[in-house]
Amino acid sequence: MKGTILVVNGPNLNMLGVREVEKYGGKNLDAILAQLEEKAHGLDYKIKSFQSNSEGEMIDFIQLEGREAKGMLLNAGAYTHTSIAIRDAILSVKVPFVEIHLSNIFNREHFRSHSFLSDIALGIISGFGENSYYLGISALVDLIEKRS
Amino acid sequence: MKGTILVVNGPNLNMLGVREVEKYGGKNLDAILAQLEEKAHGLDYKIKSFQSNSEGEMIDFIQLEGREAKGMLLNAGAYTHTSIAIRDAILSVKVPFVEIHLSNIFNREHFRSHSFLSDIALGIISGFGENSYYLGISALVDLIEKRS
Amino acid sequence: MKGTILVVNGPNLNMLGVREVEKYGGKNLDAILAQLEEKAHGLDYKIKSFQSNSEGEMIDFIQLEGREAKGMLLNAGAYTHTSIAIRDAILSVKVPFVEIHLSNIFNREHFRSHSFLSDIALGIISGFGENSYYLGISALVDLIEKRS
Amino acid sequence: MKGTILVVNGPNLNMLGVREVEKYGGKNLDAILAQLEEKAHGLDYKIKSFQSNSEGEMIDFIQLEGREAKGMLLNAGAYTHTSIAIRDAILSVKVPFVEIHLSNIFNREHFRSHSFLSDIALGIISGFGENSYYLGISALVDLIEKRS
Amino acid sequence: MKGTILVVNGPNLNMLGVREVEKYGGKNLDAILAQLEEKAHGLDYKIKSFQSNSEGEMIDFIQLEGREAKGMLLNAGAYTHTSIAIRDAILSVKVPFVEIHLSNIFNREHFRSHSFLSDIALGIISGFGENSYYLGISALVDLIEKRS
Amino acid sequence: MKGTILVVNGPNLNMLGVREVEKYGGKNLDAILAQLEEKAHGLDYKIKSFQSNSEGEMIDFIQLEGREAKGMLLNAGAYTHTSIAIRDAILSVKVPFVEIHLSNIFNREHFRSHSFLSDIALGIISGFGENSYYLGISALVDLIEKRS
Amino acid sequence: MKGTILVVNGPNLNMLGVREVEKYGGKNLDAILAQLEEKAHGLDYKIKSFQSNSEGEMIDFIQLEGREAKGMLLNAGAYTHTSIAIRDAILSVKVPFVEIHLSNIFNREHFRSHSFLSDIALGIISGFGENSYYLGISALVDLIEKRS
Amino acid sequence: MKGTILVVNGPNLNMLGVREVEKYGGKNLDAILAQLEEKAHGLDYKIKSFQSNSEGEMIDFIQLEGREAKGMLLNAGAYTHTSIAIRDAILSVKVPFVEIHLSNIFNREHFRSHSFLSDIALGIISGFGENSYYLGISALVDLIEKRS
Amino acid sequence: MKGTILVVNGPNLNMLGVREVEKYGGKNLDAILAQLEEKAHGLDYKIKSFQSNSEGEMIDFIQLEGREAKGMLLNAGAYTHTSIAIRDAILSVKVPFVEIHLSNIFNREHFRSHSFLSDIALGIISGFGENSYYLGISALVDLIEKRS
Amino acid sequence: MKGTILVVNGPNLNMLGVREVEKYGGKNLDAILAQLEEKAHGLDYKIKSFQSNSEGEMIDFIQLEGREAKGMLLNAGAYTHTSIAIRDAILSVKVPFVEIHLSNIFNREHFRSHSFLSDIALGIISGFGENSYYLGISALVDLIEKRS
Amino acid sequence: MKGTILVVNGPNLNMLGVREVEKYGGKNLDAILAQLEEKAHGLDYKIKSFQSNSEGEMIDFIQLEGREAKGMLLNAGAYTHTSIAIRDAILSVKVPFVEIHLSNIFNREHFRSHSFLSDIALGIISGFGENSYYLGISALVDLIEKRS
Amino acid sequence: MKGTILVVNGPNLNMLGVREVEKYGGKNLDAILAQLEEKAHGLDYKIKSFQSNSEGEMIDFIQLEGREAKGMLLNAGAYTHTSIAIRDAILSVKVPFVEIHLSNIFNREHFRSHSFLSDIALGIISGFGENSYYLGISALVDLIEKRS
Repeated sequence: MKGTILVVNGPNLNMLGVREVEKYGGKNLDAILAQLEEKAHGLDYKIKSFQSNSEGEMIDFIQLEGREAKGMLLNAGAYTHTSIAIRDAILSVKVPFVEIHLSNIFNREHFRSHSFLSDIALGIISGFGENSYYLGISALVDLIEKRS
Repeated sequence: MKGTILVVNGPNLNMLGVREVEKYGGKNLDAILAQLEEKAHGLDYKIKSFQSNSEGEMIDFIQLEGREAKGMLLNAGAYTHTSIAIRDAILSVKVPFVEIHLSNIFNREHFRSHSFLSDIALGIISGFGENSYYLGISALVDLIEKRS
Repeated sequence: MKGTILVVNGPNLNMLGVREVEKYGGKNLDAILAQLEEKAHGLDYKIKSFQSNSEGEMIDFIQLEGREAKGMLLNAGAYTHTSIAIRDAILSVKVPFVEIHLSNIFNREHFRSHSFLSDIALGIISGFGENSYYLGISALVDLIEKRS
Repeated sequence: MKGTILVVNGPNLNMLGVREVEKYGGKNLDAILAQLEEKAHGLDYKIKSFQSNSEGEMIDFIQLEGREAKGMLLNAGAYTHTSIAIRDAILSVKVPFVEIHLSNIFNREHFRSHSFLSDIALGIISGFGENSYYLGISALVDLIEKRS
Repeated sequence: MKGTILVVNGPNLNMLGVREVEKYGGKNLDAILAQLEEKAHGLDYKIKSFQSNSEGEMIDFIQLEGREAKGMLLNAGAYTHTSIAIRDAILSVKVPFVEIHLSNIFNREHFRSHSFLSDIALGIISGFGENSYYLGISALVDLIEKRS
Repeated sequence: MKGTILVVNGPNLNMLGVREVEKYGGKNLDAILAQLEEKAHGLDYKIKSFQSNSEGEMIDFIQLEGREAKGMLLNAGAYTHTSIAIRDAILSVKVPFVEIHLSNIFNREHFRSHSFLSDIALGIISGFGENSYYLGISALVDLIEKRS
Repeated sequence: MKGTILVVNGPNLNMLGVREVEKYGGKNLDAILAQLEEKAHGLDYKIKSFQSNSEGEMIDFIQLEGREAKGMLLNAGAYTHTSIAIRDAILSVKVPFVEIHLSNIFNREHFRSHSFLSDIALGIISGFGENSYYLGISALVDLIEKRS
Repeated sequence: MKGTILVVNGPNLNMLGVREVEKYGGKNLDAILAQLEEKAHGLDYKIKSFQSNSEGEMIDFIQLEGREAKGMLLNAGAYTHTSIAIRDAILSVKVPFVEIHLSNIFNREHFRSHSFLSDIALGIISGFGENSYYLGISALVDLIEKRS
Repeated sequence: MKGTILVVNGPNLNMLGVREVEKYGGKNLDAILAQLEEKAHGLDYKIKSFQSNSEGEMIDFIQLEGREAKGMLLNAGAYTHTSIAIRDAILSVKVPFVEIHLSNIFNREHFRSHSFLSDIALGIISGFGENSYYLGISALVDLIEKRS
Repeated sequence: MKGTILVVNGPNLNMLGVREVEKYGGKNLDAILAQLEEKAHGLDYKIKSFQSNSEGEMIDFIQLEGREAKGMLLNAGAYTHTSIAIRDAILSVKVPFVEIHLSNIFNREHFRSHSFLSDIALGIISGFGENSYYLGISALVDLIEKRS
Repeated sequence: MKGTILVVNGPNLNMLGVREVEKYGGKNLDAILAQLEEKAHGLDYKIKSFQSNSEGEMIDFIQLEGREAKGMLLNAGAYTHTSIAIRDAILSVKVPFVEIHLSNIFNREHFRSHSFLSDIALGIISGFGENSYYLGISALVDLIEKRS
Repeated sequence: MKGTILVVNGPNLNMLGVREVEKYGGKNLDAILAQLEEKAHGLDYKIKSFQSNSEGEMIDFIQLEGREAKGMLLNAGAYTHTSIAIRDAILSVKVPFVEIHLSNIFNREHFRSHSFLSDIALGIISGFGENSYYLGISALVDLIEKRS
């Protein structure tokens, strides 16, 4: 294995497959992560995933795991738009990451079009449902390997 | 009993009766909830109440209890003005709710006049001290029963 | 009787039960006021109600009756968002009041989320249809009696 | 006759032909309305016209006549830019209307370029002097008849 | 007599001497106008005064009297900050006027620091209590006579 | 013939009758222009029409034809909101023009409510579908003939 | 004599009677001050006047003379709109003052409609040419004597 | 083949591999499109690609090809931030599309963080260099096939 | 000992000495706190320190300890810019505090120049690395002792 | 010859000497360019000039000629204020340039005071009519030669 | 000699050749002025130059010399962005002037892109180091002579 | 001695101990500077202090002394919020400095929360009365010695 990719999921993503199925699809987070793991293995990486509704716990996780990991997929959910502290946690461990979103954050409420994370991300993928995760890992690995 | 009403209290509401008594009154949260419960029983509902200073724990509670409950009284305290994640939690479980505040949020600091919750609430009650809770449950039950 | 409560209704509230029944309910203003009066009597107050489409007439009424009244329920309709003169009329007679709205003014057009009245009101109740009136009188009387 | 078209004129339009003749032309409102009536008759409609300097009276008139009328020409004058209450009156009776202005409101003071009425109008005609009225009735009748 | 000066008073000025005496003084409007009249006579002008809480009636008065008058003292009260229609009425009759205020409008709520009238006034006098009227007539007459 | 009226159509107007028929109607641009030509002939003018998706080509056309023409109907489509260069082209040839729109630009996306053209237009007609063209030519000819 | 009134004139007021005579009148500052002095004597005050183009010198003067003076007329010229330091100087000596302007600052460039001084002034007089000084001293003395 | 995917490239993308190689990589557009074509064939689609520096030509192409195509990859370059006309062209032919960018538009100049296209796109992919194209076609095909 | 000083550290401050050593220095938080304790003892105070990445836990700590403490040093990290709830917690226990920052928050991203805490702090010290703590305790004790 | 200087002229500059002669002077673009060429020859440079009303063609020209040229004079006309794409074209070929304008863009409409080009230009010359070109080439050559 | 040209230099320009040599060049102000004088003589003008760090002294100089001079080169340094008083001084003596800057003020801090002087200048030259002075005098003389 | 520290005091600081004693304390500037000097000597530095109400004189002093000094304490008073010229003076001599304020500038008028100096300061200390000076010199010396 070439290393570990963190997959960090923010508030309410544990409700996937439960809430608003018509908007986010009927598959739950575990099923997505299972499929993502498979994809990661095919790329010779393992994933370490995490979900929390707590901004503080997300920071704890990023601090703890971020320095050893090769990269991170980050779907920070609503904290994307309100958390400077998660931004700082990423900066403190300098883990390269891709920002992903299930829905297209640009055609929702106006306050979702600003992100405190985008300008320090490698890139952003938004609007493709569960596929945002699969595209994201592919994009992330591609960039990591080009940089090394 | 016709069902359960959640009563969710955000940060610093555990300090009721302690902090700034001249502004918020001298009764503590437990006493208010006790009186609220009585009022709820009179309307043939039970209440399940919760208080936390943590945004994440409030989300956990809403996710856990929100789908079974008939409705929710929500005094999100300062998170009213900063939390999109609580908004998303409510949307994920689709629980009808009334937004309540002890003080009149419109005659305080400017940043308290914007709420991330109001536009998805059934209604808002602000400024009546502990009575905001009692008015709120009455208003909530009235709307729930009209809708069903 | 302990005194008089003014119930002041602004522009277009005479169309209740007529206009946009799906949004505001099918009961007309007179019927609501009748029920409100009953509720007031139960609290040992009489009500003096008024409706006008004219900002000036609303000011006239508040000036004339405001000083003797114990309190006021004010549904200023659209003038909520545009009238500084009504604000001044209230300040001139110093009548304590509760601001009420039938609909939730926070999930309508953006220009309805600002009120020239809220910061001088005792409190605000918005979104409960005719029940906003009944909740309002209860809230108002409670505060008046606490203050005296 | 196919029905009635309301022609509602706001503040200061009674001064037409008197005030600022170089800007608005020398014909007074009665003369314009007479010519408009002729045009309406040619289209098989009668008109019922109204002018007031009072926001409240304009609302009274729209409430009273708006439900029976087939449509309305509305030159709300300065209230175009400040009155939400007139907007609400129109919404309450759901009368289809065309917003008209004598002068081009977009090359005057900055505060005249915002209208509280335009987004609920069928359309807007601005800048053609008295001809705005004649164009307006033609445009209005055309749309009314297409819709029915 | 050299001519007539209009003295137009907007909403709530009929409450002078009644409301907020500590802020506006204990003299009522009639007493001020009586003293003003005396001052006007000394300058060889008569005054025609008017007060209304209604924006529309103020416009009616200005239209009716504005063309014959030599000048106008205008204390539009709260309509100073919200009425474009009064501005238009003045423009329609082209009466030269001085804008006056009892209190200093620049050290009150932020929304009182914008006036729809100031830029078309000859000048503005704000903050001198009843003296704003006496200063105003002196200032107005001085300018009228210089212009003619 | 009294002269030539330009009819300039901006981007995507060639899609009329094809795109979004429910919003813009099923008639294509050629059919509208044919009917417009007839109307122009009745007024003793000929029309010279032009459509392009290119801002530069629109400028070329206005420069080339604008000086000889008696007037112009301009439906600049989306360039209404983004092009200062078309504004300059019109100013350079000083052709009097009426700004027209098929739909009501004031009840669409917020960015469509600003126009770089309105303040230099004679007037604006918006919201009447193909009729905006027919009303426009009538309004334009009326103004041209009054000015000459 | 009852005391001293400061008359402080800011930048470019030494050019009065020289610059832009059509806007500010042909009388120079000395002549105005002479007439003002006469008026002050009639009111039993003497004046101490000062003019400088330097913000720092204006502050020096206010600090030096402000504590002993009974009041101040302040025409801070362009520093009205840019100087917080002059505001602080006034606050430091707590001299009551009237803000005056020769021209009507509300119908000039937009940046002249904000003042860093107005909210701490007793009142403001703007637009009456040299008469702003004579009205100002009368207004100031009236307020000083009422306060003492 | 299941159909055609348009690949539309806006201004300056013909300079790929030439300009700012350190930022955008050294591969030119033809090479990227060749690799993209291969990827498309593997998904059983053919691509039809287009590049222009002209907003008008981009609109022409989208109008011409957009109705028959199954979907579109759109890298509108700088027009992303300034063109409402391209937005309208897409709306007129209703072609589903993915918005792609080579660089991360959120960590560049502030004016690049607003897009006139994002809210009508299926999704957005930004920051992955040439890989944005390959990810984009995969994401697009996935969504198209889910929708049909 | 004269009492206890709280030293509350927000998100990512546990990474001191680890993250961005070139910006924040190589000493870790424990070492700084040890040195701070020594300094406190010299001033005859003991310190009780706390660090958390969780907004809720910071509130819990302030509520629990704030009422007994003599004062607080608060480095709220990124929550400085986003947390109204921490502000409320401080207000609820009324503990006097000094706001400190390691880096100069005014020469970083624009969103770091606003603080929800500064206006209720005794003072602010920003930009001196670990020395901000030592300066802070000295400043805090000085003020506490002056006030008592 | 030392090399080539591009002289790129944007929309409506072909109307020079035709349009608004009182504002831009009566000399046409060819005459100015002829005089400019002479001046360039005197400095031992040749010029290659271009004018287009099309943003796309301007980009084409800059891409084609920009890499070989020693520098560029750019009068982008109205595209100065709306085109990010021209900015990108310049960045892609890295040609040093001076931004010039015939008129003073700072005393015209407000929207002309922002330029998408100024911050990447060597310098800006605005307001000197045709002389802006002659000053511009002198300034440009001076800087180019200092840099090499 | 045809007359005098003022060359007015604002704050910190006395530091030229000393401060930030890499940004402003190593030549000091006297050397630049000497070279400028030579250039002026060649054009048959003499120059009178002035430098001060004091806004007030700059105003004094402009008042004193501005009326007799034929024109002025003005490099107001930082006062460009903050001084309305210098603007007024220029207006009071009506001296035609060219605004010059050594550096390109549009690629520095955001607050340097606004000037209180540009809209009343003949033109602006920014970004060419000492050459801005030499270009400026040439531009100024050219305009002065055209105007006379 | 290790060198000289400048202590620069802006407008109205000469009024310390005189003005608003309840806000700023009763000690005058000389007494504070004497105590500061003692503290400086203890750190083996001498201080050279300066106070002026004139922006220009402050610039003169900074230019004259700034290059030789080891560092500067700067309390620019109200010029903190309005002076770009002082910022430039500091940049021109590159003296490292600490920005200090007696009062907490963040809980006063809104316009005091912006500083033109903070982002180029080493750090900021605000709110500790005279102690801001003593803390400031300690902080400054600590940073200077770390840097050398």
